[in-house]
Formats: sequence, structure tokens, C-alpha cells
Amino acid sequence: MTPIQPLSEAAFALTLALFLLAPLAIAGVALINAGLGRSRSAAQSLLGSLAILAVAAIVFALAGATFVGTAGAAGHAFQVAGKSWSWLGAGPWLLGGLGAASPQAQLELLFEFLAVALAAILPWGSGADRCRLIAGCALAALFAAFVFPLTAHWIWGGGWLAQLGVNFQLGAGFLDGGGAATVNVLGGLGALALVWIAGPRRGKFPKEGLSTALPGHNAVYVLFGCLLALVGWLAWNLAGAIVFLHAPLGALPGTAVNTLLSAAAAVLATFAVTQIRFGKPDASLCANGWMAGLVASSACAGLVTPLAAIFTGLVAGIVTPLLVELFELALSIDDPSGAIAVHGAGGLWGLLAAGLFAPQSGQLVAQLLGIATLLGLVLPLLYLLLWLLNRVLPFRVDPDGERIGMDLHELGGGAYPEFVIHRDESYR
Amino acid sequence: MTPIQPLSEAAFALTLALFLLAPLAIAGVALINAGLGRSRSAAQSLLGSLAILAVAAIVFALAGATFVGTAGAAGHAFQVAGKSWSWLGAGPWLLGGLGAASPQAQLELLFEFLAVALAAILPWGSGADRCRLIAGCALAALFAAFVFPLTAHWIWGGGWLAQLGVNFQLGAGFLDGGGAATVNVLGGLGALALVWIAGPRRGKFPKEGLSTALPGHNAVYVLFGCLLALVGWLAWNLAGAIVFLHAPLGALPGTAVNTLLSAAAAVLATFAVTQIRFGKPDASLCANGWMAGLVASSACAGLVTPLAAIFTGLVAGIVTPLLVELFELALSIDDPSGAIAVHGAGGLWGLLAAGLFAPQSGQLVAQLLGIATLLGLVLPLLYLLLWLLNRVLPFRVDPDGERIGMDLHELGGGAYPEFVIHRDESYR
Amino acid sequence: MTPIQPLSEAAFALTLALFLLAPLAIAGVALINAGLGRSRSAAQSLLGSLAILAVAAIVFALAGATFVGTAGAAGHAFQVAGKSWSWLGAGPWLLGGLGAASPQAQLELLFEFLAVALAAILPWGSGADRCRLIAGCALAALFAAFVFPLTAHWIWGGGWLAQLGVNFQLGAGFLDGGGAATVNVLGGLGALALVWIAGPRRGKFPKEGLSTALPGHNAVYVLFGCLLALVGWLAWNLAGAIVFLHAPLGALPGTAVNTLLSAAAAVLATFAVTQIRFGKPDASLCANGWMAGLVASSACAGLVTPLAAIFTGLVAGIVTPLLVELFELALSIDDPSGAIAVHGAGGLWGLLAAGLFAPQSGQLVAQLLGIATLLGLVLPLLYLLLWLLNRVLPFRVDPDGERIGMDLHELGGGAYPEFVIHRDESYR
Repeated sequence: MTPIQPLSEAAFALTLALFLLAPLAIAGVALINAGLGRSRSAAQSLLGSLAILAVAAIVFALAGATFVGTAGAAGHAFQVAGKSWSWLGAGPWLLGGLGAASPQAQLELLFEFLAVALAAILPWGSGADRCRLIAGCALAALFAAFVFPLTAHWIWGGGWLAQLGVNFQLGAGFLDGGGAATVNVLGGLGALALVWIAGPRRGKFPKEGLSTALPGHNAVYVLFGCLLALVGWLAWNLAGAIVFLHAPLGALPGTAVNTLLSAAAAVLATFAVTQIRFGKPDASLCANGWMAGLVASSACAGLVTPLAAIFTGLVAGIVTPLLVELFELALSIDDPSGAIAVHGAGGLWGLLAAGLFAPQSGQLVAQLLGIATLLGLVLPLLYLLLWLLNRVLPFRVDPDGERIGMDLHELGGGAYPEFVIHRDESYR
Repeated sequence: MTPIQPLSEAAFALTLALFLLAPLAIAGVALINAGLGRSRSAAQSLLGSLAILAVAAIVFALAGATFVGTAGAAGHAFQVAGKSWSWLGAGPWLLGGLGAASPQAQLELLFEFLAVALAAILPWGSGADRCRLIAGCALAALFAAFVFPLTAHWIWGGGWLAQLGVNFQLGAGFLDGGGAATVNVLGGLGALALVWIAGPRRGKFPKEGLSTALPGHNAVYVLFGCLLALVGWLAWNLAGAIVFLHAPLGALPGTAVNTLLSAAAAVLATFAVTQIRFGKPDASLCANGWMAGLVASSACAGLVTPLAAIFTGLVAGIVTPLLVELFELALSIDDPSGAIAVHGAGGLWGLLAAGLFAPQSGQLVAQLLGIATLLGLVLPLLYLLLWLLNRVLPFRVDPDGERIGMDLHELGGGAYPEFVIHRDESYR
Repeated sequence: MTPIQPLSEAAFALTLALFLLAPLAIAGVALINAGLGRSRSAAQSLLGSLAILAVAAIVFALAGATFVGTAGAAGHAFQVAGKSWSWLGAGPWLLGGLGAASPQAQLELLFEFLAVALAAILPWGSGADRCRLIAGCALAALFAAFVFPLTAHWIWGGGWLAQLGVNFQLGAGFLDGGGAATVNVLGGLGALALVWIAGPRRGKFPKEGLSTALPGHNAVYVLFGCLLALVGWLAWNLAGAIVFLHAPLGALPGTAVNTLLSAAAAVLATFAVTQIRFGKPDASLCANGWMAGLVASSACAGLVTPLAAIFTGLVAGIVTPLLVELFELALSIDDPSGAIAVHGAGGLWGLLAAGLFAPQSGQLVAQLLGIATLLGLVLPLLYLLLWLLNRVLPFRVDPDGERIGMDLHELGGGAYPEFVIHRDESYR
């Protein structure tokens, strides 16, 4: 375990300010999700994001916060091979003692509130245009009560992945300053499980012929959301560097520059890839590439050089549009927001890049062990839990609801009642 | 009077950063107001918000700032029952000596600039689709020159409501860290006075039959505005806790969590209430509920436990949709933005909750005295002043202007000149 | 050269937080640009802003950052009249030594990353509806590699304009805390050169008759963008006051109030001017006026009194709509975003106002020398470079591409595929 530096008052104050900016990541993602969906589902998409944020916050306060724990605090551990493996935190219930906790623990808790909400909003974007509000809320409760606390304890809360450094001299243990794993990979894998279970939108993969393009209904929301997300991700990465990587203030400008460079390299790479692939750059995929660059930076911005950050972004920007196409065409996965590629794969790549470029010896092995855990343990767990949940609370609306749109079906009214919308042949 | 702690440099720096985030509350509310109005009034709504912010800032700088005062500074007071009752501040004119003022006084003044602007924007949303720009500007001038400074002096500037603690051992005096009273109740009561005087939109309450639903023209603006407002309200509540409650930095994470939990509980409560009431959740009312949760937290987030914050939000979220319906159906009040219920009633409930849950003895009595003052003194004063103002500068456009829309009538062009808008039967 | 105060930890932390808010200026301007253009170009406009930000960041990291330099560091200088004139910085390549640099130098570099991006986005808005993405990217590369570093070295990096104080006792040397010159005038002059070279939109100036009004397609984006820009400009001005004016924390509330007052006075002045001129206030021009007030404040908010800030804003708000009209009607310049008037002229006026109202003797002469340099040296240089660039990479799409809209032509799809758009007579 990295020895925890006492936080200066200025670092504490800065992290509080960063906490306030982090919801802009949520606002940006919520706007991107709405813009990438259909106009007939826009209000339901955004109301779902608000509700998911709300459910996640309440359930995390009442239950999940207890299980995350903080490095050095008591936890549930077992002994294997003479080492202690902590698998679940054991904090106070109902946020008891929040005011008396150490500044470090207070700030960890603050960011976990937003982390679990953002993680739960990611699958919601992938289930757009067909999943019910109640499904989003139930998934948020599941994330906040159990899945996120478990993962976050392992990684952020002094659990066994964080202990890989102390226990096995694997670098500084599994490192994830900005939530690449705890937020983005978790959300991306949740998205994968959700769309596997819920299936594609009606008309997306017709019996004969190619898949139907269902372009997002508002590119301005999507691209403007990317700019807001930049602010949110910068806040997240800087705060994570302070709280989870114990970085001194003087290291933060470098973290900020790396975050920006990773997103910049990624969007330009996607621009080039889609230009080559389709003859024109694709605005939605460029937005996906930009976001993947931000996501990848969440693992490594605090650990690497600017050139490595540019390289990380370039790879994220090249891989993302190819993965989106692969998922859609080869695997018949219908992911309107692209969260599986952007947040799932982008996060995994960032975690790997952190291992490749971080100076500590053994860090790459620690990162690979963490990635294996996410894919081999967390993904099956998520699939199982969501499969069970879907039996109790079916995720999907009935076909008629999907045809008229989620807004009319679930809310009784559309997002844009005064605007004339094109009649949609694909749903006839 | 609470003894004022000297601010640390870190607390001063944090509060400055929070000041910059607070305009996002204004941006969020302005976007919500535009989204809840008609498409034919959207440009006028937002231009009005900019103009109100501008008038409020200029008039407050030239006149109002003088009258707010700061705790411990000179003011206009009278003696009753052997006690000094300060009713109006007596600061320097034209922001003189701003740079030389104490850090505490500087920060108070900064937030008052935004507080008066936000307070003045709230009635503007309620007068949507029928009130003239000049009416909004005149109301802003009135607020900034006199009504806000008076109220803010009593509550924030060391006036008689703040002195209730020192003078009569009523807790810490009337407490309102985040502007529940000075911003939200003031604005909500102003909205009530405005819509009483201006009357409902044409066609809202037809001679025969029920009231007509006039849904907002863009639910995305409304719900995205709620996410922006979260950032703004967090900034407001944390800054208020530092500046007006003299909270140490270590208490601020609790304030932030309480703000989030109050909004979260409120939106879920409104979701449930509207689901039960109408069979489907209502997106606009859920947005209202979310905002009411934020508003209620402005009074109590810095003073209560997380469970009390959840309870406060739950009540706000249950009461808000019922009040909106009551105002509309039983009292024939046409309030497109819902500011009367959300900011007026939500703020009053928050102030009461602060009294119920704050640990200091006598705090409840102090809060009740403040509430009585707002309802018994400030509301009649507002009504009188706005009634006089309406005689000089009629608030309302002529019926023909209302029919063609505020944008065309007041600005000569619409907000969305390229989009095809449904023809509107209700105005024929 | 002003002696550089060592930054306190709190000032360093605050400036980091301000850095995260500064992208909201970019987000606001990008949204304003999209809103002031046609609906058929909205996705291309915003994707262009993302790409420009990306190119600027990468190129600045790889090349430009080297040439900016910081006050007191090594640079390329020549000797004239016994004085040293530094004309180009000589920093490390590839951001080498960023972590080891002084806090002051780190923060300067951070803001320069955003400054060059914002400067390059300004001409993009003026070239809306007709300039190709690749032109925007090439212009961004040119700005980031050379033009911005040159100008920023002279003004922010200890170059000869900054040295006017030490070398010739002209006040504190040329002063530009918030980037009025390095960002806004540079961008505004780039916009002028771009539209001169690219020419007006088809149908803007018909052979016979008056110029055609081509109103922006979404006034909500424009006016909401103004509110976001307020946050960004406040961040920019406060950060600039800390980093480039070496202001103590206690002076920052005054800077913030001045920024707000300048924008407020400007929007009200434009409101009045357009009301008088056209019989109704004009929403787009009021947005332009608001922005010009912010831009003008970037030069002087940290240096002047609140009354001088109001005066500065008033002049900016009166002049901006007149200049927009003059450019369009008398000079046949087609500038959809108004960047030439808003950022170019507004920035020049702010720099002049700083000279008029700053207390130091000789400051006015320093400001006039800087303005003369911008107009006499930077503008011809920009024109020359962009003229050459246009020979290699023609800025403009072919007429057919312009007719169908930039989105369909350059991206293969529109921003609003589900909305019905009015058929546009002006392009037939």
C-alpha cells in the first residue's frame, strides 16, 4: 500500500472544488446519451439519468458506502499464503462519522458518490430507446449497493488489488487514479451485459440485409456534451491523482495536460480512421473517440509522460471506431451510445497503458491482474445479476411501446411537443 | 451574532472557485425556464435572463450593495426593549473599499451579486410567454436596489433576524447558509406576486372546462438544466456554509453529500407521486421536484445529518407536485416554471427543516420567526411594489403579441427560424 | 518586468481549479458559433471546434510550447539601443521538465494550452457555413505552432512588449491579464483575415439589393452559450490576474466583480442601441454585446475600478452592434459569429481601456504600442500566412457543398436528422 500523505489544506480545498466539477462529466454523458438516441426517447433518456443519479446516491448512502472502505481501515479479509486479502470494506453505516473521518477518507467517499452514479449511467445509454426507467433504476441500485462497492474496495479502498504492491511487490498495486476501472470499465461491462440481455432495437438488424443506421437525433448535444465531459474528466483525473495516487499539487498540471492530450490525439485518430474508412469523418464516432481518449487517460494521466499520453489517445482513437463497427456488424450488438467500446474497451486500454508506461517495476503485472479480474470476475457477476434482475423486472418495453417511443410510452408526452418530426420508416 | 472566524487562505481560495461555479445555477435555471415555456418565447426568455442578470449586477453595484452590510459593521438600527435591531446596512457607496475590505466581507459581497440575480430570474420564469422584457428588467432593478438588500441585511448582513441568537438566545439566529430565504423564497414570493398581477396565459384557463396543459417546448433543456443546477447549488451551499455559517473546511464534504441526497430523495419522491397520481412519471414535475430538493437543501445542508437531508428532500419531492397542481387547478395560478412551488415553498420548507433538525436549542423558533417575516412582511411589500410597478410599466404584452409569441413580438424573430413548428390550436 | 511573487499553495490550487473552468469559455463559444450558423452546418461547426481544440493542443505540446517561454527564462533576443529585446522563447522541447518547472511556469503553460485553442476557434465561427474542416485544423496548427507562441511570448512570456516597463519605464509593460490580446484580438484578426480570403456565404450579398439576413438557427444555444462563457471568462480573468498580473488573492473579488459588471453594462448598452436602431432589441447582437463586454474585461478587469469596468462595458456594448453593421453593410464582410467585432475590436478596446484607467504612468503608451503591434505586425502576418495556406488547402467548399450544407457535404449526415427543416429559399 502506498503510504498516505497527509493532505494539505489547499489540496483538500482544491479537491472539494474538483468534486463540484465532476458532475459535469455526468451532465456531459447524459447529454451525449440523449443526443445519440432517438428524439422520441430524449426526455426518458435524461429523466433516466437524473433518476439513476438519485437512486445511486441514496442507495450508496444507505448501504454501499459501508462496503467500500478506505485504505488502512478495517475490512473483511481472508488469509491465503500468509497474506491478508481484503475483499470487502467495513465502514460505518449510514455515513456515520463522516464529519469526524480523516480528510482523505471524506474526499474518497465524496468521489465515490459520483463514481457510482456515472458508472450506472453508462449502461443506460447503451439500452437507449428500448429499456424501461425502472430497469435503469434497478441497475443503479444494484451497482450502488453491491457491485461498485465491491470493485471500488478492491481498487480504491485498500482491497486485494490495491494490496498487490505491498503483498507481492507488483509496482504500487493495481492503479486507477481517475476511475478507468471502477467507473468506466464497470459501466462498460454493465452496458455489455445489459444489451446482451435486452437485445437490439426493433429494426436495427432486419432479417435480410445489413444493419440499419439509426443516427443520433441531435449532434449538437453529442459534441457539446464532449466539451462538458472534458471539464468533468479533468476534475476526475486531478481529484483521483490527489486522493488515490497521493500526488503532490505540483504534479497536477502534468496530469491535466495529459488528459487533454489523450482526448485530443484520440479524436484526431478517429477523424482520420473514419475519413479513410467512409470517405468522410463521422461526427458520432469522433465523439466516441474523444470520449475514449478521456476514458483511457483516467487510468494513466497521472502516471505517464505527455508523449505516452498522446500515444494512449491515438490508440484509443484508432481502436474505438473499429470496435464500434465490429460489435455492430460482426456481433450484432446494438449499443446506441457506444459505451461498451468507449468506456469498456477504452478503460481497459488505459489500464494497460498505465502498466506499460508507468515507471514502477511490476506495475504491468498488477494492471494485467486487475484487467483479468474485471473481465473474469466482474463481467460474469454483472451478467448473472442483470440476468436475474431482468427476470424480476423485465428491462425492455413491449414492442408497441418501442414503436411509439419511450417518451410517449413511459412519460405520456414527448421531449419536443412543438417541433415537427419526420415520420420514421424504419419503425413502420 | 456568531463570532466570525478568520478565513484561512485555502478557504478564501475555495470560496472564490465556488463563486465561479455559482453562475451555473443561473445558467441551469435560465435553461429550465426557457425549456418549460413555449418555443415561440424561448429567445425572449433567455435574453430576459441575461438582461435581468445584467440589470441586477449594475443596480446592485451602484446602490443595493450599500444597504446589505456585513455582520459587525455599521448599520441603521433602532432600539426596542433595550436591544439593537438593525434593519438596513450602511456600507460604502459604489463598491468603495472593496479591495481593502476583510476577506469575509469581500466574499459575502461576491455571492450577493449572484444571489440577487438568481432571485430576480425566478419570477421571470413564472411570467413566461406573456411578460415583457422591460418588466423583467424593472423587477430586477427593484430587487437589486431595495428588496434583496433589505432581506439580505436582515439575514446575511448582521440584521435583526441574524441577531435573534445574540439578542434572544434563539439558536444561532435565523440561519440560511445557501440562500433558501434570500434567493429562493424571495424569488418564489416575487413570482407569486408577479403572476397574481399579470394573470394567466391566454387559453390557459378557458371559460368552460379544465385548464389547458401547455407543456414546455424542450424537455432536454429542462432536465439538462437540472444537472447544471446541481453543480450551481453545490457551489452555493458550500460557499454559504463557509461565508455565512462559518463552517470549517472539514464540514464541507457533509454539506455536499447532504445537497446531493436532498435532490436525489426529492426527485424519486416526485417520480413516485406522479406515477401514482397519473399512472406515469411526469418529466417536468420530476424536474420541479429535483429543484425543490436542491432549494430545500440550501437552508439545511450545512446543519443536518444525511438522514435528515434525505427526509427533507423526500418531503420536498412529495409536496412540490401536489402544490403545483393545487396552484393550477384550485387557485387558477398559471406558473409555467413552477417557481412558486419549487423555490417559494421549497425554500420555506428547507428553512423549517433547518429549525427541526439543527442541534441548537431555540433554532426552530428563530426559523419560524424568519418564515413569518418572509410571508408577513416581504410578500406584502413585494406585492405592493410590483403592483405599483405594473401601473407604470405594464408587465404584460397585448393579446396580439402573446398570440404570435414573445420572440416575434419583442425581438422581431424566433429562436428556431429553420425548424418547422406545429401550428398551435390553443391560440387560434 | 514585474518582479514575480512566489505563489502560495492556495493560489496554486485555486489557479488549477480555474484552469478546469476555462474550457467552459471554449464550450460557450463553440455553442454560440454553432447557434449563429445554419442548422445544416451545426454538426460540422461543433466537430470543427473539437478538432481545432485537439490540433491546437497536440501541435502546441509538440512545438509551440517551446517558443512561448516564461518571464525571466532564456529566450531569443537581440540588442537595440543598449536594450535587450526578446522576440521568441526558448523553452524545453516536448514539454520536457514540466513537472520540475516552477509553479508559476507550470500554470502559465496550462493556460496557454487553452488560450491557443480558444484563439483558433474564433476564426472558425466567422468562416461558418462555408469553410472546410481541414481549413480549421490547418489554421489551428498554424496558430499553435507559430503565431500564438510569437504573440504570447511578446506579451506573457517576458518578450519585448512585456519588457516595455523595465526597458522604457512604460507602466508595467504591455498588460493583458486575461488574454484580450493573445486570445481575443489574435483570434479576431485571424477571423478578419479568414473571411477576407474565403469571401462571403453564397447569397449573403446578392448582386442587386441589400445584404440578406441569415439569422442563426438556434438562439437558445447562443444565449445559453453566453452564460457558460461568463463562467469561463471569470476563470480566465482570475487566473490571468494571478499568473500574469501577479495579483494577491485579496484583489481577485474585485477582478470578478469587474468582469461581471463589464459584461452586464455591455449587454444593456447593446439592448438599448438595437432598440433605438431597429425598434426592437436584437437577440444575436445582444449576445455579441455581452461577449464583447467579457472580452474587453479580459484586459482591464484586474486593473481598474468597478465604475471604469462599467464604462468599459458600456462602450463595448455600444460599439459592437454598430461595428457588426458597418462590417456587413459598408465593407461587405460576412462574419456569422461576429468574432471580428466582438473579439477583435472588443479586445482592442479593452487593451486601450486598461491603459486609460490603470494607475501606472506610461501604461497608456505601453498599451498603444501593443495595439499598434497587433494591427501593424500581427494582422499582416496572419493575412500572409492564411493567404499562403489557402493556396495549399483551399478554405472554402465548392458551391454545391455550400448549397447542401456543410454537414451533409463534409460529414455525410445532418445534425438534426429527425427534425423537419424549412426549405431555404435563399439557397435555391
